[in-house]
Amino acid sequence: VDRLARQSPARLALGVFAGVIAIFTALLSLPIATATGTRAPFVDALFTATSAVCVTGLVTQPTGTYWSTWGQVAILVAIKIGGLGVMTLASLLGLAVSRRIGLTQRLLVSSETKMTRLGEVGSLIRIVILTSTLFEVAIAVILIPRFHLLGESWSTSAWHGIFYAISAFNNAGFVPTAEGLAPYVSDWWILLPIVIGVFVGSLGFPVVLDVLRHARRPRRWNLHSKLTLTMSAALVVAGTALVAAFEWSNPRTFAPLDWPATILASLFAGVMPRSGGFSTVDVAGMHEGTWLLNDALMFVGGGSASTAGGIKVTTLAIMLLAILAEARGDPDVEAFGRRIPREALQVAIAVSLVSATIVLVASLALLAITGLALDEILFEVISAFATCGLSTGITAELPDEGKYVLVFLMFIGRTGTMTFAAALALRNRRRVIRLPEERPIIG
Amino acid sequence: VDRLARQSPARLALGVFAGVIAIFTALLSLPIATATGTRAPFVDALFTATSAVCVTGLVTQPTGTYWSTWGQVAILVAIKIGGLGVMTLASLLGLAVSRRIGLTQRLLVSSETKMTRLGEVGSLIRIVILTSTLFEVAIAVILIPRFHLLGESWSTSAWHGIFYAISAFNNAGFVPTAEGLAPYVSDWWILLPIVIGVFVGSLGFPVVLDVLRHARRPRRWNLHSKLTLTMSAALVVAGTALVAAFEWSNPRTFAPLDWPATILASLFAGVMPRSGGFSTVDVAGMHEGTWLLNDALMFVGGGSASTAGGIKVTTLAIMLLAILAEARGDPDVEAFGRRIPREALQVAIAVSLVSATIVLVASLALLAITGLALDEILFEVISAFATCGLSTGITAELPDEGKYVLVFLMFIGRTGTMTFAAALALRNRRRVIRLPEERPIIG
Ligand SMILES: [K+]
Ligand SMILES: [K+]
Repeated sequence: VDRLARQSPARLALGVFAGVIAIFTALLSLPIATATGTRAPFVDALFTATSAVCVTGLVTQPTGTYWSTWGQVAILVAIKIGGLGVMTLASLLGLAVSRRIGLTQRLLVSSETKMTRLGEVGSLIRIVILTSTLFEVAIAVILIPRFHLLGESWSTSAWHGIFYAISAFNNAGFVPTAEGLAPYVSDWWILLPIVIGVFVGSLGFPVVLDVLRHARRPRRWNLHSKLTLTMSAALVVAGTALVAAFEWSNPRTFAPLDWPATILASLFAGVMPRSGGFSTVDVAGMHEGTWLLNDALMFVGGGSASTAGGIKVTTLAIMLLAILAEARGDPDVEAFGRRIPREALQVAIAVSLVSATIVLVASLALLAITGLALDEILFEVISAFATCGLSTGITAELPDEGKYVLVFLMFIGRTGTMTFAAALALRNRRRVIRLPEERPIIG
Repeated sequence: VDRLARQSPARLALGVFAGVIAIFTALLSLPIATATGTRAPFVDALFTATSAVCVTGLVTQPTGTYWSTWGQVAILVAIKIGGLGVMTLASLLGLAVSRRIGLTQRLLVSSETKMTRLGEVGSLIRIVILTSTLFEVAIAVILIPRFHLLGESWSTSAWHGIFYAISAFNNAGFVPTAEGLAPYVSDWWILLPIVIGVFVGSLGFPVVLDVLRHARRPRRWNLHSKLTLTMSAALVVAGTALVAAFEWSNPRTFAPLDWPATILASLFAGVMPRSGGFSTVDVAGMHEGTWLLNDALMFVGGGSASTAGGIKVTTLAIMLLAILAEARGDPDVEAFGRRIPREALQVAIAVSLVSATIVLVASLALLAITGLALDEILFEVISAFATCGLSTGITAELPDEGKYVLVFLMFIGRTGTMTFAAALALRNRRRVIRLPEERPIIG
């Protein structure tokens, strides 16, 4: 795996994901997977399997009522496998990248421990499984008594608690009931653990492990952790404040809530575009401005090597730092006392522009296929590409071609940005002849 | 001027443009400026003056019917002054940049001629005025007989010919009649000179002069000219083909036309987002997909130091070349046998991300102010920022605050990108202490 990851990271990730999606499509195509016992249409089985494995959360059929308990368990397993797959594959690629480019900054083990490669990979996978399961258990343990207090049986409470815990920490956005989290819009006990789970999950494993290892000494966190945490926090604060401003007096969303509930709902809506994908108020009823804000936040997404999607917060951070360096007249892009290499800037441009192009082309395709307006299309396309899972409610109404476009977006959004950046970073960068320099006019 | 341009290019451009806009706002506020002889509201006078001086073409009142002949002449003079101002200022800044960064590639004179700086500036301005006026005369001479053949008096034909010639070459997008160019949708004689005028005008003076000087030897064109021409041609071809695909059978736009007229209309609609701003079919009737396509094309805009707006085609070209270099594993960004310096890439990121942020913030502001949908708002915001002037028809209906947002966008879009890039390029880039390098994970 390690060798394959270094030699052809793209093929590895694409193959693993395509295979796992095929298996779950087959499982969800069985008659026992639906509540009515009839075979689900291929497009719905494929869409749901892709959405679960790619931890997106967009659905063409309501998870809690259309699928049987058996089907819902399959979806939950797909989320867990997809989440673990993303975290381990991305961490492996990160390991390969950091080794190839000759940095001592490893993801897991410092070079002094002299572990073998196989041991290193095995220990990485073990640690990822252990840590993520611990986080999920912690969230479930908090949620289950609350569901029971609210009148559910212990077994239903346990099922809902476990489902939400796994769905939240893996940023999957699937909900086990038809109403989802809407009934708990003012319930801090339920929503706060979910918000924290989504936020921690969206940081990515390299950050979580680095922070856990140096929990008491933030100064020793590596540059990647510092950038990810700072940028994520800034986006949550900005998102929360702007959602509150746009929705405060909207009768279809926040207006009926008292002010503590409004603050909770704003915080919730501010964190979810990172790519949690849950919603406590009706997204369809939100202001156009909130939609556009969500478009921007979802496009940025979460941390690298996390279950979140998008171009990633470090990509945005590097571009912002480049602007800051330009404005100051600094020749180097710097942050937290470190210089960021020029190649990183080039990768950031490539990831951003390719992502923007994919969103543009997919939006044009969906506009051509459907008669829907740009606001809903753009929201859906970015949500699928960034594997966020928020929706204005058009997913189920799309024609089959439109659903296949979203399937492609979820798949490419999940596997593409991860492997693309790794593939770029693993490139051979030697060159004998340098051409004479000439500067075009810009802007 | 040369000294000021090098010392504080931003202040020079902002001051000149603000002053000229103030003068024309005053002129358009006179009662004789309107057809009815009543004083125009301040917001309309300011909006029209800004739109004319910034060669945008968005209007809150129809130019041909609301303003008197006197008012229309004032608008035409404002366009001519604004266009010349953009071309000379941008060329001066380009001159300052190319001198400061120590390149021999000058805009006008090769270093052998040893002209003094004052002489150089004077000769630049003379050549810009002469060349642009020659182009405008040529377009007018072609248009005037056609207008006369179509039944207009010689004096009206002359007025319309001159108005369209100046409006086209300066990429201004103003039309002297209520119907604009719609009656000539299938008239190659009228539309082809306008298309060519808009295209040449959108390339920018550095390119036009370079190409004229080495007309027979394209190999000797400089990198900037080659990049601008290639990228502009690619965008026109892509724009024309995609508009044709989206609108071919649209009953509100191309469906009533025969196929040669459809081709002409597609070509026209493919060139205008570069930032001509004319339209022969109703933009409001176009497909949502065409709107989104226009959004993307308008955002890119035209050539540097031209009357076109947007982030400029060279900025996009550099970012695409950076992706190509990444994909190939090249350490350098190269084009046409030349290496593009790393700093250019950093300026390109800065220009693009700042522009995208301005569009995002302005769209959020207009969504908050008005009750309009995202598609129309985004189109209007990008059109104003890129000084393109195409509109889905909401300009006149906006509340005054919304009109002021557009005024700000036109002003910042015109003066901002031009001076921002120059200011960045003129920065001092010396640094003694280099920090240790650390690479974050991207994507
Ligand atoms: K999600
Ligand atoms: K224009």
